[in-house]
Amino acid sequence: MRELLNGKKIVLGACYYPEHWEREDWETDLKQMLASGIEVIRIAEFAWSKIEPREGEYTFTFFDEFLELAHRCGMKVIFGTPTATPPAWLTNQYPEVLNADMDGNLYRHGARRHYNYNSAKYQDFCKNIVEKIASHYAGHPAIIGWQIDNEINCETDVFYSESDTYAFRQFLKAKYHNIEELNQAWGTVFWNQTYTSWNEIYVPRKTIGDSTNPHEVLDYIRFVSHSARNFVKMQADIIRKYKKEGDFITTNGLFSNLDNHSMTKESLDFITYDSYPNFAYFVDGSGLSGLRDRKWSQNLTEVRSISPIFGIMEQQTGANGWNSKMEACTPRPGQMSLWSMQSIAHGADYVGYFRWRTCTVGTEIYWHGILDYSGRENRRLRELREFSKILEKLSELAGSTYLAQVGVLQDYDNLWDARLDRWHRRVEEVSREGIFTAAQLSHTPLDYVYLQDSSSLEDLMKYRVLFYPHAVILTEERMALLEAYVDQGGILVMGCRTGYKDLTGRCTRAYLPGLAAKLTGTDVIEYTFAAPEEEKVWVDWEGTKLEAAVFHDLLAPLDGNAQVLGVYSNSYFAGTPALICNSFGKGTAYYFGGTFTKEVAEQFLDKLGVKNPYQEIFELPACCELAVREKDGQSYYFILNYSKEAVTLQVKEKRINIYTGEEWQGSCLLEGYGTVVLK
Amino acid sequence: MRELLNGKKIVLGACYYPEHWEREDWETDLKQMLASGIEVIRIAEFAWSKIEPREGEYTFTFFDEFLELAHRCGMKVIFGTPTATPPAWLTNQYPEVLNADMDGNLYRHGARRHYNYNSAKYQDFCKNIVEKIASHYAGHPAIIGWQIDNEINCETDVFYSESDTYAFRQFLKAKYHNIEELNQAWGTVFWNQTYTSWNEIYVPRKTIGDSTNPHEVLDYIRFVSHSARNFVKMQADIIRKYKKEGDFITTNGLFSNLDNHSMTKESLDFITYDSYPNFAYFVDGSGLSGLRDRKWSQNLTEVRSISPIFGIMEQQTGANGWNSKMEACTPRPGQMSLWSMQSIAHGADYVGYFRWRTCTVGTEIYWHGILDYSGRENRRLRELREFSKILEKLSELAGSTYLAQVGVLQDYDNLWDARLDRWHRRVEEVSREGIFTAAQLSHTPLDYVYLQDSSSLEDLMKYRVLFYPHAVILTEERMALLEAYVDQGGILVMGCRTGYKDLTGRCTRAYLPGLAAKLTGTDVIEYTFAAPEEEKVWVDWEGTKLEAAVFHDLLAPLDGNAQVLGVYSNSYFAGTPALICNSFGKGTAYYFGGTFTKEVAEQFLDKLGVKNPYQEIFELPACCELAVREKDGQSYYFILNYSKEAVTLQVKEKRINIYTGEEWQGSCLLEGYGTVVLK
Amino acid sequence: MRELLNGKKIVLGACYYPEHWEREDWETDLKQMLASGIEVIRIAEFAWSKIEPREGEYTFTFFDEFLELAHRCGMKVIFGTPTATPPAWLTNQYPEVLNADMDGNLYRHGARRHYNYNSAKYQDFCKNIVEKIASHYAGHPAIIGWQIDNEINCETDVFYSESDTYAFRQFLKAKYHNIEELNQAWGTVFWNQTYTSWNEIYVPRKTIGDSTNPHEVLDYIRFVSHSARNFVKMQADIIRKYKKEGDFITTNGLFSNLDNHSMTKESLDFITYDSYPNFAYFVDGSGLSGLRDRKWSQNLTEVRSISPIFGIMEQQTGANGWNSKMEACTPRPGQMSLWSMQSIAHGADYVGYFRWRTCTVGTEIYWHGILDYSGRENRRLRELREFSKILEKLSELAGSTYLAQVGVLQDYDNLWDARLDRWHRRVEEVSREGIFTAAQLSHTPLDYVYLQDSSSLEDLMKYRVLFYPHAVILTEERMALLEAYVDQGGILVMGCRTGYKDLTGRCTRAYLPGLAAKLTGTDVIEYTFAAPEEEKVWVDWEGTKLEAAVFHDLLAPLDGNAQVLGVYSNSYFAGTPALICNSFGKGTAYYFGGTFTKEVAEQFLDKLGVKNPYQEIFELPACCELAVREKDGQSYYFILNYSKEAVTLQVKEKRINIYTGEEWQGSCLLEGYGTVVLK
Repeated sequence: MRELLNGKKIVLGACYYPEHWEREDWETDLKQMLASGIEVIRIAEFAWSKIEPREGEYTFTFFDEFLELAHRCGMKVIFGTPTATPPAWLTNQYPEVLNADMDGNLYRHGARRHYNYNSAKYQDFCKNIVEKIASHYAGHPAIIGWQIDNEINCETDVFYSESDTYAFRQFLKAKYHNIEELNQAWGTVFWNQTYTSWNEIYVPRKTIGDSTNPHEVLDYIRFVSHSARNFVKMQADIIRKYKKEGDFITTNGLFSNLDNHSMTKESLDFITYDSYPNFAYFVDGSGLSGLRDRKWSQNLTEVRSISPIFGIMEQQTGANGWNSKMEACTPRPGQMSLWSMQSIAHGADYVGYFRWRTCTVGTEIYWHGILDYSGRENRRLRELREFSKILEKLSELAGSTYLAQVGVLQDYDNLWDARLDRWHRRVEEVSREGIFTAAQLSHTPLDYVYLQDSSSLEDLMKYRVLFYPHAVILTEERMALLEAYVDQGGILVMGCRTGYKDLTGRCTRAYLPGLAAKLTGTDVIEYTFAAPEEEKVWVDWEGTKLEAAVFHDLLAPLDGNAQVLGVYSNSYFAGTPALICNSFGKGTAYYFGGTFTKEVAEQFLDKLGVKNPYQEIFELPACCELAVREKDGQSYYFILNYSKEAVTLQVKEKRINIYTGEEWQGSCLLEGYGTVVLK
Repeated sequence: MRELLNGKKIVLGACYYPEHWEREDWETDLKQMLASGIEVIRIAEFAWSKIEPREGEYTFTFFDEFLELAHRCGMKVIFGTPTATPPAWLTNQYPEVLNADMDGNLYRHGARRHYNYNSAKYQDFCKNIVEKIASHYAGHPAIIGWQIDNEINCETDVFYSESDTYAFRQFLKAKYHNIEELNQAWGTVFWNQTYTSWNEIYVPRKTIGDSTNPHEVLDYIRFVSHSARNFVKMQADIIRKYKKEGDFITTNGLFSNLDNHSMTKESLDFITYDSYPNFAYFVDGSGLSGLRDRKWSQNLTEVRSISPIFGIMEQQTGANGWNSKMEACTPRPGQMSLWSMQSIAHGADYVGYFRWRTCTVGTEIYWHGILDYSGRENRRLRELREFSKILEKLSELAGSTYLAQVGVLQDYDNLWDARLDRWHRRVEEVSREGIFTAAQLSHTPLDYVYLQDSSSLEDLMKYRVLFYPHAVILTEERMALLEAYVDQGGILVMGCRTGYKDLTGRCTRAYLPGLAAKLTGTDVIEYTFAAPEEEKVWVDWEGTKLEAAVFHDLLAPLDGNAQVLGVYSNSYFAGTPALICNSFGKGTAYYFGGTFTKEVAEQFLDKLGVKNPYQEIFELPACCELAVREKDGQSYYFILNYSKEAVTLQVKEKRINIYTGEEWQGSCLLEGYGTVVLK
Repeated sequence: MRELLNGKKIVLGACYYPEHWEREDWETDLKQMLASGIEVIRIAEFAWSKIEPREGEYTFTFFDEFLELAHRCGMKVIFGTPTATPPAWLTNQYPEVLNADMDGNLYRHGARRHYNYNSAKYQDFCKNIVEKIASHYAGHPAIIGWQIDNEINCETDVFYSESDTYAFRQFLKAKYHNIEELNQAWGTVFWNQTYTSWNEIYVPRKTIGDSTNPHEVLDYIRFVSHSARNFVKMQADIIRKYKKEGDFITTNGLFSNLDNHSMTKESLDFITYDSYPNFAYFVDGSGLSGLRDRKWSQNLTEVRSISPIFGIMEQQTGANGWNSKMEACTPRPGQMSLWSMQSIAHGADYVGYFRWRTCTVGTEIYWHGILDYSGRENRRLRELREFSKILEKLSELAGSTYLAQVGVLQDYDNLWDARLDRWHRRVEEVSREGIFTAAQLSHTPLDYVYLQDSSSLEDLMKYRVLFYPHAVILTEERMALLEAYVDQGGILVMGCRTGYKDLTGRCTRAYLPGLAAKLTGTDVIEYTFAAPEEEKVWVDWEGTKLEAAVFHDLLAPLDGNAQVLGVYSNSYFAGTPALICNSFGKGTAYYFGGTFTKEVAEQFLDKLGVKNPYQEIFELPACCELAVREKDGQSYYFILNYSKEAVTLQVKEKRINIYTGEEWQGSCLLEGYGTVVLK
């Protein structure tokens, strides 16, 4: 049986770096960890030189000794492959393995992830070190799983080395077969960009005015994702040859320009995430949106879409910071536990803390672990000990999954197109934040649902309502699935800018919204960005006033089924339809001409009857998140208080507080940063 | 007879890209254009690969077929040379043709204008392709004129390739003959910059602290202009060998680091401009000054100074935008016609719209044409059809020219010096905007008047009042002309910082304002920037309070003719003269110690009796521009309403509305974005 | 006897550039200078080409003639070595002498200081030119001293050429002997940075995410300082071989990444400073803190810490500016004299003005001298003449030194660590500005006291109170000195973040504040940045409310001697000690858990009884600085009015106004920008 994510227990772990400490510290540290509830550690992911100190020289004694000690103490180990940080001897001798900026300046030794995925030389070195490590250590009984590399596509998600150009050409040849097809797909007739040979093609290079060919860049992002996935698969395939049965393979983090879903499916047993909600508390105010640390619930929603049950490989414990940037507060009492419960509420059955001790050297001297430099007892360790005791009560919910009846459709084509296309990005960003915020603050559980080749009607039918806010790129396959969903009774909500591009990012010549016209019964007769110097534009939805923020599609209903529900009430297009609803089979499709701000999204949730679905059971203040995990018909209600002030909840139906075994009903107090799980 | 700008008619055109569409679309598009009033199209300016798909391989059938069809349909064609976008095979094989940034990083394929003017290799390729095109197509009856390249010095106006360094040395040798003269002119004794050989000289390169030798940079800008002009002339000379009689040569746009006046004189029949007032309506608020789209009247004033009658090669029709930047609103109903009339009011007898259809591929998928991607009928096409009908009524004013009695003197030496010299630039920018805004809002027609080698006293005597706001660089020739102007009765107004540099940008050792001292009767005894932490400094001009913004020259009158009209009324130099007026022959010269903000400029217009010269005929709200074109003694009054609200005008003397033939007198209503021409 | 800084007289000088003017101007200029009180000029520091116009060709006649003339007129000369601006022929022929940016792009001819210190080729050229100059000119009777190069480490203080990498390796070999020690010191075990060979080590290069190894960068800054010092010493050693007895060697300015104290000790007779308080009056508002020109008193305090009696080589006289940046006002009447007296108040016995005449060519055409381009009489010259007369009255205070009983400890290790470490920098910057501002506005004279190898207990015992705000890096030697100071009765004040790093910048594993725990009797049990989204955190110091800005160390007293004086009064750590005072021998050490804002610092000055020590004699408005110089028991009180308004002082004990010889007592008026020296 797998040691983690086995449906039996929620396990705590930590990241530990034996190479950062004296050999004498190891046993003390291991025992203190175990005594504090830590059962698993991750090691070795930056320790290439500890195994191959010089090219072709190998030594295994360092980790042999450590693993022996860990095993003796009863500590389980996740072993990381060290390919995120090549040794100095490697990059100095073979600079072709390095990544470069767009001008070709190489990124040098001293940081992480300065390599490129496509250097044959680097691939050889990596194959070799992974083979050595896996063949030597895989049988060790302390080991329970493997982490590949570290945070794929972190630090950077763009690659401009010569190796990348060579590989990009191969990628394109495989996709287009001949240069004419590529010219067609990339619209190179525009601005005389026509290519006559594969050798004229490069990864994006410096252009004047930073102009880009959008179709090329879309393929380039796909290529980056493809390269990263291949790199991970290469390592997974090697490890799989050697690993003990039951040991798992994963990698950590969630980064951009990467199809994490496909990567997980083809190479991993599950994904692990690195959760740092304290990023919201930078001193320079660069913290995130109004949601602050609740923004990480959005990230965890993304993680869930890949692996409904997942692990946290790095969970925030202390202040973060590098010497060169990021000044952040120390988490306040309770926040470490709150953020751990945030992870668990969304489906984490393993929570590994980053990191046991704060490193005394290097760029990350301010990336604090549970313990400070001295290793002495401290407030955060005490909080961990208390939390680990609570966690023991939660074993029964291991294996349960998050429950939502509202979904937001996503797909990598549109995510990536929004990245390279500012018209697309501007609407996408507003709606992404608006819908999530509306759901989060109204206690409406929400899923992200990725449309993939393997997506089925069953996947969609789980949801009463699906938003697909700005499906700029649409395909016939995806439309067929959406039509089936609505036909079977689903409710689909689409927003402005739907359907005007194909998979290459070229614009359709069909009337807009292109492939979505039939399902939505909508004709887009004109469109415009909201004018910055004018007053806001409003839509009247049967008496309710909604802002049509950022963008305005001017609509017309296509036929009798299509009903105009809302019209613009000002600007030169006052009176024009702005919201159309189309009956289609047993279901309904909505087309809204604007973006989904928080107010608009909340209105949709309300009107479509899916807002705050547990209001019969709970009445919660906005500062609390509600999440529900379910297993075998049993629902577990997580209530997380992100405020530093204590709050009063109304529990309308009696429930059991799993932490204490007490019954909760009526007015119940939840302390500042407090959490509770009720069943 | 020339087909455009022939004094008979104002013609509408469009930009069309046959290579962007299916061959089946051509005839439909051409006929729809003709039916909508479009008589001329511009084609081919980015289509090198359609003619030379590989080095040395030529094919003419594509445009042969298109021209045949155009001719058959009755559409006239402006043919563009394709040198703005070299083919991929060219730049990949010969990277030396590329322009570079200051660090030497080459600008690569994928954008426009990434070449350098001075590469012998690129010049050869261009000569060849222009020769091929001109010799093959010039006789075609559909062709009525030629556009050279596209938007010379757009995208960038600085060039740092090796070819540019070689050419810069030639340019300097021709100018200075020996290195000692160059050292003298560039003041290289400062900071030990002395050169001992031409080979030590480069185009500007990376320096520490971005410091520059101002005299070198001034020559460098002259060199850029010289290179661009030569490049255009090279093409014009070839085309002239082949073109049919009556066919014209032009180029489009108005960009910096370029003496557009000389370029036009030596190579073109007239200049055409690309007018995009919608730049004022970016979503990110980066639109321009308070004048918004009226800022384009300033640009058109520049165009008029080159060609009193000119064309618009690209007139805004839809939202603009690239995938990578520029989110803009769609023009509101009426704005496309308003902006067309803005062009015509200033002297455009040809208005070509950009572009017929919105391209479905490439960087400019959001640079909308009249039609959207689908090509379906839309609001903008309907507006065009209505506008083309109005335009037919305006034929009688073809050939008439803009009328102004106030001019602002400019010259390239000072424009370019202001670019490299922040002390100069700061005052220049304030006065440039101030004077134009004052004239525009007070309905005072205004010309820019360029002082060139060919400028004559007659050119100046057209104006009752001339401003020369900050003639930092002065020459004896120009002073002689100015003195003659004032002597003959002209009124000249000069501002702070006049006359302290010579043509090399070196400062004079003469008492300031140097060569202007005699004419202005003024001695500048001290000067300073306005202190940012202090209160504003005021000048009392015979009881009127004016701000002396940005800079303060402290003045003294030189002799009895010079009269102190205004003194500073606060700061440590309170009581010091700030405005001196000097009788000189039959005229008067004014020296003002500050800059010309809108308020100061309006005061001068008023005191000098040239403000709002048509106030006996019209009373207009500030949101309306008044422009007057005149031909054979007949004045045509253009009134353009830039506001979205309808406004009421007072027409005090009866005039005929040319649009309708009706008489206008008394209170007349002009709708939002509406225009009218009265005679 | 040395001509300057000889304790007999305060001397005025000017910077003069004979190469900028006609030979005919020289005598006029020299005589006008002498007539205006200028006795010394500095020349030649950018004039390499005037002596070696081509490689290996020497000519001495230019400065021979000038020196002869100067001597004849009675003008004394400081001769500058011209190594800041290598000739064009040198850098063009030997580009390896150039400095580069981090990507390796070379900085080119046209500015200053574009060379690197470590090029053997450049060192050879410099040795040679200095040898030529010193051997030829050193005996000339007009010469009284030498300036080496110009503004060492100005323009840039980072160097990335290949020569720098080679020299860095030598520097590190000499320091660490073997690569294992370097690995240990740099903590390269972190992120697998371990080096296996010296050839893998470079000066900092481009890394992804701009991450840096803080220990490496700390050594790199030390290396830059070391390189600059060696470069200066190389020149000083040559000059010393030739110079006349009594002639001095100096260099000018105060720049970063440079141990100015060691440089002065090993190579110079004294330091000279370039004082430009007008930097506070940029038009673009980029002037400095609320102190504006009083910020230069802080700079002069730094200068005093190196040479208690020093010179000003460049004292502001006019507006500053380059053509490419820096638009600044002209100093207002009185400011030139005020700023001269500011220099003198802090210990300057020589004040050399920059510059006699404003140069008519080059980047610095707006860096105004006393005279404008024309050289005509002006307001600033008149002010100089008046000032030189006043100065004659001040001869008696020559040789007196600045008197302070409060010191702020500094050391280069912490200054440089704060530069590379943002956590360190953020607290350092706040306290540096806070303490200085509190002292300056409360009329509390203050010294900066650098802890150096040579620092002795006597050096410290001069002060009743010493602040060492954030001694992040501590050594046992420095702690021993501090303990001795307190033991002998001194009062030491330390702030948050003390003592957590060693000299390599690695963090200690000892309990914090590490080596300072014993002296301060303090244990830091937890710490955090102030949370930006929360309310301010306050400390109650026996009833006084102080903000604990930016950072919070949570404290506990270590034993009976340690007394809790203040506790945090809000946030989650309310009630925790924030200020501890520890009796130690005859003195007391304070540990404050926050930073020293102006308010906090003023509170400490007050509570420790050292605030406004001359309040029995004077009552001054905040806009006046009070400085005291003392010689042979005689105190000289400088009062400097930085306001443009006249102010009234209360002189409670009769004093003599040295300017006029009058007695001052009671209410006395000091005009705007006025100064007075009382004794």
